[in-house]
Amino acid sequence: MNTSEAAQKGKQAKEAAAKLAITPTKVKNEALTRMAEALSKNAKVIIDANSIDLEAGEKKELSRALLDRLSLDGPRIQGMIEGLNIVKSLLDPVGEIIAEWKRPNGLKIKKVRVPLGVIGIIYEARPNVTVDSAALCLKAGNATILRGGSDAINSNKQIAHLIAQAAYSAGIPEGAIQLIEDTNRQTAEELMAARDYVDVLIPRGGKSLIQTVVQKAKIPTIETGEGNCHAYVEKTADLKMAEEIVINAKCQRPSVCNAIETLLIDKDVAAKLALPLFAKLKEKGVEIRGSLDQPASEEDYKTEFLSLTLAVKVVSGIDEAISHINKYGTKHSETIITKDKKAAQKFQAEVDAAAVYVNASTRFTDGFEFGFGAEIGISTQKLHARGPMGLPELTSYKYLVEGQGQIRE
Amino acid sequence: MNTSEAAQKGKQAKEAAAKLAITPTKVKNEALTRMAEALSKNAKVIIDANSIDLEAGEKKELSRALLDRLSLDGPRIQGMIEGLNIVKSLLDPVGEIIAEWKRPNGLKIKKVRVPLGVIGIIYEARPNVTVDSAALCLKAGNATILRGGSDAINSNKQIAHLIAQAAYSAGIPEGAIQLIEDTNRQTAEELMAARDYVDVLIPRGGKSLIQTVVQKAKIPTIETGEGNCHAYVEKTADLKMAEEIVINAKCQRPSVCNAIETLLIDKDVAAKLALPLFAKLKEKGVEIRGSLDQPASEEDYKTEFLSLTLAVKVVSGIDEAISHINKYGTKHSETIITKDKKAAQKFQAEVDAAAVYVNASTRFTDGFEFGFGAEIGISTQKLHARGPMGLPELTSYKYLVEGQGQIRE
Repeated sequence: MNTSEAAQKGKQAKEAAAKLAITPTKVKNEALTRMAEALSKNAKVIIDANSIDLEAGEKKELSRALLDRLSLDGPRIQGMIEGLNIVKSLLDPVGEIIAEWKRPNGLKIKKVRVPLGVIGIIYEARPNVTVDSAALCLKAGNATILRGGSDAINSNKQIAHLIAQAAYSAGIPEGAIQLIEDTNRQTAEELMAARDYVDVLIPRGGKSLIQTVVQKAKIPTIETGEGNCHAYVEKTADLKMAEEIVINAKCQRPSVCNAIETLLIDKDVAAKLALPLFAKLKEKGVEIRGSLDQPASEEDYKTEFLSLTLAVKVVSGIDEAISHINKYGTKHSETIITKDKKAAQKFQAEVDAAAVYVNASTRFTDGFEFGFGAEIGISTQKLHARGPMGLPELTSYKYLVEGQGQIRE
Repeated sequence: MNTSEAAQKGKQAKEAAAKLAITPTKVKNEALTRMAEALSKNAKVIIDANSIDLEAGEKKELSRALLDRLSLDGPRIQGMIEGLNIVKSLLDPVGEIIAEWKRPNGLKIKKVRVPLGVIGIIYEARPNVTVDSAALCLKAGNATILRGGSDAINSNKQIAHLIAQAAYSAGIPEGAIQLIEDTNRQTAEELMAARDYVDVLIPRGGKSLIQTVVQKAKIPTIETGEGNCHAYVEKTADLKMAEEIVINAKCQRPSVCNAIETLLIDKDVAAKLALPLFAKLKEKGVEIRGSLDQPASEEDYKTEFLSLTLAVKVVSGIDEAISHINKYGTKHSETIITKDKKAAQKFQAEVDAAAVYVNASTRFTDGFEFGFGAEIGISTQKLHARGPMGLPELTSYKYLVEGQGQIRE
């Protein structure tokens, strides 16, 4: 008999999901209101729990960056609360009639949006993912099983308990929001194999987390967030615009997935662009790998630096740029700076990525910037959803077929 | 260095897919025409190759059913040719603008349908799958890597060679249609792990094939075709209609996934329905498991018989029926026979399946019957596509974003 925490909670989640699928929008919105209230009233309790995690993290000598991601304070809790209010304001996708038609034999077919069911979220040290994920899944009618990293376990336990109880008090079925509390590696693997209970897995985190889930999961999975993105300055580019876009795409927030990692420059404009641009990048603390005479290394082109490092390559033209991107890119966000409409069209048609830009920074690949309101992640695979995933991407559909006794001849 | 057949062909397929994604509809349709001609002209060559497989199959003492699926003759080759003509007549989904909008900052965003890329098809002994799959994938702009079962290898080699050469002669990039010729188990596993080259895997076959792929695949996979389907006769049902639907759903073609395996009868109408219905089913050769007094076994309820066997259960009402279906069903096709609109709505809302019918046979879950024209399979998962999968389900999308120098603040 399988009594692992994942199986036990999975079973409860599956039962809850069946009820949640037919829970009215009003109840889901009331739950989101109460979840926000619970966070607001219990900010101190959450910060206390978080300080236990932070102390442990300091003892373990976690990096500054990791401790920063882990850390919660008043403004960050306020951020979570605002997130809940935004999710509340979004349109409920469940029940939408995507299409309907009638067949010659009289059968009426409706394609209707339904929740995915039970969604497993596997993530690392950011406790705000606990709230964000649960809220988005809930609004789209899905039960959630959360499996956060061990470094944030005290924060996550406190937050998950508060939001789950608040949601249940509003009429959400019990079991709809659950946290796996045992952060042993085995519990993650059990969750990834819980085919009987979990419909979809979404890993949220760095490359190694996502790769582990992709390799081990026995459940349909959506890969998110790995971003080895490029800017290509084509030979007709407005060089001032190119400079602004490259600096923005690299420096505005280098630690995120839609920042660029490699700059490709057409040989015809390389000398003219590079001198002033490289000087400005260096002023902003950017380390440049490669030069006008010397490409960076294969390893550099493969790397998602997530820091103020930028690989550079001079290319012979658009074909080399496209083939470099399709070889090294992670199908996330790519941009061309050009005045040539044909070059722009070719780039958009041939680059294989979720978002392909012309004359704009890659930093816009984001649920809010696209107008979706909020996102659970940015998909880099082609199955199911691509790019920023909002509420509709957290749903499936079913066909409702109405007959009057039709049988097949 | 990885030089497995899957990796080698995968690499070629990936290169072909990049070109095929921007190949015009006209070229794809011309390829389908030439593929049909090639089959027509070479029917004898195909039948000769097939007879080698059949002889080997008889020596290996394959079952009659398997030999029948494997066997090709004039009419079956004609069927493949008609299939190609149908795919040719279908609308090309690639390039469709699914949505477009403008953001307050002036960015214009277009969501455009694009091919999935490289699709791996893993299947068993039916050589017609070779043609069907290649044609549907091609029309949706995808390269295909076919990996059929060893029992059909001579037929598949001949067919794949003919259709690939015909397609290439029309301008389809070489490598767009390839067959893995080594039918060792290892080649299937290599294909399932070829993340660098294959975007999506679609297993087509029986339960054990699909389960193997789901367990071993490292690539996004669409589960298809496992169908443990039910008919529920609600207490207000028109019993004559119920009788016709149950007989049709069980007997019209018992070996297919959308045939029913279990009949659920409301206790209030059980006696009245069962006597004449069971007599008629037995006349048609149906073996009934369970009776009015005695449910069938747990094992029976779990089984997709795919034959003239029907499990029966008397239920106390709609709630028991729904919970039985959600427990044992494979999320494929389910039907209720009822005159009660509320019962029908409840059933459609609460049963978790790709197609949920009211007063019609489950046998209609099929690409042609739904009006999609052709299908590559019937998805029983909730990610990406559900139910019959036509051409649009063989595509993804990308966001094309056009700016005038926008950077993120």
